[in-house]
Amino acid sequence: MLNELALDDFLASALKEDIGCGDVTTDSLIRPSQQSECGLYAKEDGVLAGMEVAARAFHLLNAGILFQAERTDGSTVAPGDRIAGIRGNARAILKGERVALNILQRMSGIATKTRRMCELIREYPARITDTRKTLPGFRMLDKYAVIVGGGTNHRMNLSDLVLIKDNHIAAVGSIAEAVALAKKKAPFPVKVEVEVENQRQLAEAIQAGADIVMLDNMGCDEMRKAVAFTNHRVTLEASGNVEENSVVAIASTGVDYISCGALTHSVRALDISLKFDC
Amino acid sequence: MLNELALDDFLASALKEDIGCGDVTTDSLIRPSQQSECGLYAKEDGVLAGMEVAARAFHLLNAGILFQAERTDGSTVAPGDRIAGIRGNARAILKGERVALNILQRMSGIATKTRRMCELIREYPARITDTRKTLPGFRMLDKYAVIVGGGTNHRMNLSDLVLIKDNHIAAVGSIAEAVALAKKKAPFPVKVEVEVENQRQLAEAIQAGADIVMLDNMGCDEMRKAVAFTNHRVTLEASGNVEENSVVAIASTGVDYISCGALTHSVRALDISLKFDC
Amino acid sequence: MLNELALDDFLASALKEDIGCGDVTTDSLIRPSQQSECGLYAKEDGVLAGMEVAARAFHLLNAGILFQAERTDGSTVAPGDRIAGIRGNARAILKGERVALNILQRMSGIATKTRRMCELIREYPARITDTRKTLPGFRMLDKYAVIVGGGTNHRMNLSDLVLIKDNHIAAVGSIAEAVALAKKKAPFPVKVEVEVENQRQLAEAIQAGADIVMLDNMGCDEMRKAVAFTNHRVTLEASGNVEENSVVAIASTGVDYISCGALTHSVRALDISLKFDC
Amino acid sequence: MLNELALDDFLASALKEDIGCGDVTTDSLIRPSQQSECGLYAKEDGVLAGMEVAARAFHLLNAGILFQAERTDGSTVAPGDRIAGIRGNARAILKGERVALNILQRMSGIATKTRRMCELIREYPARITDTRKTLPGFRMLDKYAVIVGGGTNHRMNLSDLVLIKDNHIAAVGSIAEAVALAKKKAPFPVKVEVEVENQRQLAEAIQAGADIVMLDNMGCDEMRKAVAFTNHRVTLEASGNVEENSVVAIASTGVDYISCGALTHSVRALDISLKFDC
Amino acid sequence: MLNELALDDFLASALKEDIGCGDVTTDSLIRPSQQSECGLYAKEDGVLAGMEVAARAFHLLNAGILFQAERTDGSTVAPGDRIAGIRGNARAILKGERVALNILQRMSGIATKTRRMCELIREYPARITDTRKTLPGFRMLDKYAVIVGGGTNHRMNLSDLVLIKDNHIAAVGSIAEAVALAKKKAPFPVKVEVEVENQRQLAEAIQAGADIVMLDNMGCDEMRKAVAFTNHRVTLEASGNVEENSVVAIASTGVDYISCGALTHSVRALDISLKFDC
Amino acid sequence: MLNELALDDFLASALKEDIGCGDVTTDSLIRPSQQSECGLYAKEDGVLAGMEVAARAFHLLNAGILFQAERTDGSTVAPGDRIAGIRGNARAILKGERVALNILQRMSGIATKTRRMCELIREYPARITDTRKTLPGFRMLDKYAVIVGGGTNHRMNLSDLVLIKDNHIAAVGSIAEAVALAKKKAPFPVKVEVEVENQRQLAEAIQAGADIVMLDNMGCDEMRKAVAFTNHRVTLEASGNVEENSVVAIASTGVDYISCGALTHSVRALDISLKFDC
Repeated sequence: MLNELALDDFLASALKEDIGCGDVTTDSLIRPSQQSECGLYAKEDGVLAGMEVAARAFHLLNAGILFQAERTDGSTVAPGDRIAGIRGNARAILKGERVALNILQRMSGIATKTRRMCELIREYPARITDTRKTLPGFRMLDKYAVIVGGGTNHRMNLSDLVLIKDNHIAAVGSIAEAVALAKKKAPFPVKVEVEVENQRQLAEAIQAGADIVMLDNMGCDEMRKAVAFTNHRVTLEASGNVEENSVVAIASTGVDYISCGALTHSVRALDISLKFDC
Repeated sequence: MLNELALDDFLASALKEDIGCGDVTTDSLIRPSQQSECGLYAKEDGVLAGMEVAARAFHLLNAGILFQAERTDGSTVAPGDRIAGIRGNARAILKGERVALNILQRMSGIATKTRRMCELIREYPARITDTRKTLPGFRMLDKYAVIVGGGTNHRMNLSDLVLIKDNHIAAVGSIAEAVALAKKKAPFPVKVEVEVENQRQLAEAIQAGADIVMLDNMGCDEMRKAVAFTNHRVTLEASGNVEENSVVAIASTGVDYISCGALTHSVRALDISLKFDC
Repeated sequence: MLNELALDDFLASALKEDIGCGDVTTDSLIRPSQQSECGLYAKEDGVLAGMEVAARAFHLLNAGILFQAERTDGSTVAPGDRIAGIRGNARAILKGERVALNILQRMSGIATKTRRMCELIREYPARITDTRKTLPGFRMLDKYAVIVGGGTNHRMNLSDLVLIKDNHIAAVGSIAEAVALAKKKAPFPVKVEVEVENQRQLAEAIQAGADIVMLDNMGCDEMRKAVAFTNHRVTLEASGNVEENSVVAIASTGVDYISCGALTHSVRALDISLKFDC
Repeated sequence: MLNELALDDFLASALKEDIGCGDVTTDSLIRPSQQSECGLYAKEDGVLAGMEVAARAFHLLNAGILFQAERTDGSTVAPGDRIAGIRGNARAILKGERVALNILQRMSGIATKTRRMCELIREYPARITDTRKTLPGFRMLDKYAVIVGGGTNHRMNLSDLVLIKDNHIAAVGSIAEAVALAKKKAPFPVKVEVEVENQRQLAEAIQAGADIVMLDNMGCDEMRKAVAFTNHRVTLEASGNVEENSVVAIASTGVDYISCGALTHSVRALDISLKFDC
Repeated sequence: MLNELALDDFLASALKEDIGCGDVTTDSLIRPSQQSECGLYAKEDGVLAGMEVAARAFHLLNAGILFQAERTDGSTVAPGDRIAGIRGNARAILKGERVALNILQRMSGIATKTRRMCELIREYPARITDTRKTLPGFRMLDKYAVIVGGGTNHRMNLSDLVLIKDNHIAAVGSIAEAVALAKKKAPFPVKVEVEVENQRQLAEAIQAGADIVMLDNMGCDEMRKAVAFTNHRVTLEASGNVEENSVVAIASTGVDYISCGALTHSVRALDISLKFDC
Repeated sequence: MLNELALDDFLASALKEDIGCGDVTTDSLIRPSQQSECGLYAKEDGVLAGMEVAARAFHLLNAGILFQAERTDGSTVAPGDRIAGIRGNARAILKGERVALNILQRMSGIATKTRRMCELIREYPARITDTRKTLPGFRMLDKYAVIVGGGTNHRMNLSDLVLIKDNHIAAVGSIAEAVALAKKKAPFPVKVEVEVENQRQLAEAIQAGADIVMLDNMGCDEMRKAVAFTNHRVTLEASGNVEENSVVAIASTGVDYISCGALTHSVRALDISLKFDC
């Protein structure tokens, strides 16, 4: 789910940010025509994501660079695994290294955490999903990494889902009125989700015709009750305090989706390095 | 150390990314003229960073929004602390909320971790510094947050410091030749740093006239030896595997700077939320 | 449903395109400080759309221009009606006139045609909707004008709805497989629509779990049959050859939405002019 | 008369607008490596314009796509005519289809109408010209399509012609003073045109040294008188209410140019479709 | 003749280029709230140009800065003359100083040289004009400065004049064919200029209907002969080796315009400085 | 020291500025498929700079153009020397000619002047350096040309050096406090330079720990005294009134660097032309 033209803009910006007025080290010390070979290596266990993005970063700097992926997005890697070989103009490789690694490490960090959460709940039908708590400018890549890790994406931005929260309800008067107004005014192919805090609101939301209901910060017993009451009439999403130590209990309630902001707002980068062969 | 014009570009991009083709929820449910009041609240302990950036995000959406900071960058906050009041057009507040929070939470997460590391080593002269392992597009803000947390900044990009690594040395032939070439070719106000792995290389780098020497992944005993040998002739930077459980030992060796990539590549967002008063 | 920051970018581009290297007439003949008053007048019957966009165009050129709307978006206008008064710097008014009118006339043309089609079918539950056949760069405004005219929006871009067409089905093998794959891979809040050409495909699409089915170029009898068969299990959209002389017959079949590309791909501008009072 | 670099910017914007955060249908259902062949077909009679623009749109998405034009700009097409073959990456073809068609259909619509008007007056020396009533962002392509249809272009923007209208004259005092001031202040290679409403103003404009005089909304008898009086001393342009049913009468008066805003402000798209061969 | 929106883009780029990742001196040493007063002073004799551009540069950094012009564009200044007072946020003044001065000094340098050449030929009807030999990105300002100095502008870019040179003639076959083709294909309000090297080509160009003829690198006797032969049937422009020591002789031949590339390709900046009062 | 991605942005802007809405001459007269061969020729003595930039400008317009450099950056050229051959699409060559020449002539003008100054002082250890008095948008190329001419670069922008001037000192209180504050707050790899006007300030700056001291507008005797006093404890830069007739005297004082604003603020373009072979 990538917009390749937007990706190129993003990468060009990132490279310009890092290169500034020129790489004073490389341009002083490396001959313009020098060729190099190097490899990307995993330095810890995890799930790889962003290989094509990394390749594209080098390509934008020098179309002649050969980026040979030896592992694909979604692969499990272990310390020491070689994940790609890179060959070509030495200056361009040195200038692109940091940007490519910064992106690859973040994306792989997200995929790794997503995979871990998906595996924790693999016995349950629930699926892990992300949020809009992504890094500004980085949303497309953050959400792509969630997919690679086995999760599914929540809305991409404020345009592709109506999500009615407490202050919207307060402004309109009731869940029923809010859903009706949204169905009348929003683009018709857009679903309507309502955030609820208790069973009464859940009943109202279902009655109003919501497509999805978000159970916000509910305890597991409450969620279980909600699942039973709903009986598949709408999609249920659990939200709030989703972490590795809580996700199994949440999944066991029978909800359909579990959204986790920490997947993208608190990322531990996967350690990956670039080593020169020559 | 902010370029305000570049900041506005960054924020406008972030807001456009999140708003997409319009906020279908808010535009459907909230009257264009509705006014609201709300507050930003800390939900955990930490150090605040990014208040002016958050204010500016709302300002770009609607110049009439009043953002009243009640705490400043660098303040310690505790769960429940109100950190700002926001008053103005309800639609604009709702549209800007997520972007402002995403930025504020990341920046505060960085400041919080930086502060913690600075305090751990407060008895030593060493200072904590960052790296180029920042998020693409976000470098200016990541590095600003490090300052707020009490750290100091390393180079901003590839233009403002010559940093000679092993592959540069390999390409040129020796540390001495590499430093000489850099001093001849790079802009004259730029310092020259050399990355070394052992005492012999350290001696070569000092001899060659390096301004800064990076001790890369050295053990503490080695670093102590390096400090003694150097005797303040050059600035010494420790790098590699810097974490909260290793930083005190590193600082105790007497190095001048300790650089830590995890400050910015593996950020845990500080939990902050926006609540509507009305 | 406007992204105001994106709107400003669009207007600034449009003004720069028209002003080129400067307005050689105005800059030669009009003193920089000269003030003027003028009015916008309708020259034919129609529905107004784009008043805030026009105001914003003048505002970008000169923040001191006072644009006093005397009619609002959605108003019916007749020849000679004054729709706004504009007062301020004469040079800025002259430079912004053409861009503001070009936009206002197109948007009002779209709103006028949409209103006419909505009124034709006002006895039926069906609603008029647009398509992606909008002008490049102008989609947000084209779709906004459809709303002003009483229509509803279809998807804004390729991200906010899965719309499975014949070649997608051919690539995957069957409607059932295509819908299943889409539900697995696309962001979960996104609906799935399937384009069908006959009753058998309709049955397959419903069976597969489509949210919306597009009846593509079906005759009215076929559509009526489809409506009866469907019995509100999914949303039905009629598409193809929708014009003013066919829309009533289509609406009478009982479909939920009628999409009309001509609303935006073949627009007759509403005649509006700017006249100087002094 | 195209600025190819500006064209690429325009197309990249258009594609990014339509693709949004990714094509959720195509990316879910079509394998990345899948190849396809398809054709562009005319569905009604008209004049083709924009073939290279359409080809370029696909090329920007994927440089490997082979766009084989089978008809050239300016060709007359009939329903069913195959106008181009497209072969290459299926995802890229599907993502580029709508943007390419939207542009091609509008440009061909403009060329078709222009051709019709040119043919109506082919016995007269007058030439059809366009105006600045083009779509924002689309001016270069709108004007190119007019050329393809057999028309000639009027000024491209406010920089390349002085065009003195009533309010400019009012501000300066007289036609004579306005022309003199413009000749003194505007770049010297730029022509001066004056808009007049009657014979007296025409005489003044000629006397003042105008290069072109626009006869604004004059009746045919008045225009004929103007042509006789002028006797080729200046170029005469007829403007106002130029439609297919009035253009012959206007041309018969002997004016040199007839400008028609409707060529570009009220375009009926030519119906063209893309069909997959496999 | 300025496009104000394009000017703002230019200035924002220039400021971002100079400020980089932040002004490390000012941001380290000056308090954010500090106010300052300073003045702009001429340090040599010349003609001022660019005052509003300089003011706008400061304004973009901080809308609260008060820029009080004490001299206007076109004024003659002498060493020590105070030309403007600036008051406001000290950080913003320090960050904007260099960009504002760089622009003001270049523009004033151009105006000064233009004024000198205009005065040298003030007894002759000829006017000094510029060329396209301007700095990339800076054309609008370079040409504006020529106007301020008393010159007139030649074409702004490749779109607003047909200028037929030897290689165009070679490609087409003859001056007559080239002019005819240009008149048929170029936008009709655009003039046609032909570059000639001798009397025979001049005669051909006039015969072909050129509006302007450029006498390229002709000696003064040849030019005088050309003026006599032409007898005001077309506009004559002298071009080539125009310097202060040759311009009077050229003007004395009776040509209408004298174009001088050196006005903008070889600029001596006028010395202007900013001094802090407090 | 070039950021190639930023260079492409700059060149694309420059080409779009010059081509405007299309090259009305070339597009009217030259067939799209016509091929041409031409050469770049020096027309006066000088030092060449910018060959790769010129090549890139043509490449952006048409990737098929073959630009064969026959001389490299830094070469000495004489009138008549052929410096490059260009072969390919005639339209693209004609459209790129002016932009390529404007850049090449300016850069070569800078390199020529820099070379001359470097040769004047070749017996002394001092090196010529530039300033921030470069053209907005052109800094990277201006500074690159200085390198080609044999000079060295001063800071690239406000981020890569602390340069403390009188008003900074006034704001803080003393040189000692200013240097201390800068060392604490600025990124640690950044050097600190202090501008001084007399020996007392020089002593203070050295005492405070400055890395570089700028001797601002000092007479040669004063500078000699400063050199003796300093005795290589810090780097000394001479600044102010550096011209070809003063530079030798300044160099003879023993300073390390001599900065010259006129290298880039008052450039005489080197005369270079493009001639068509066929």
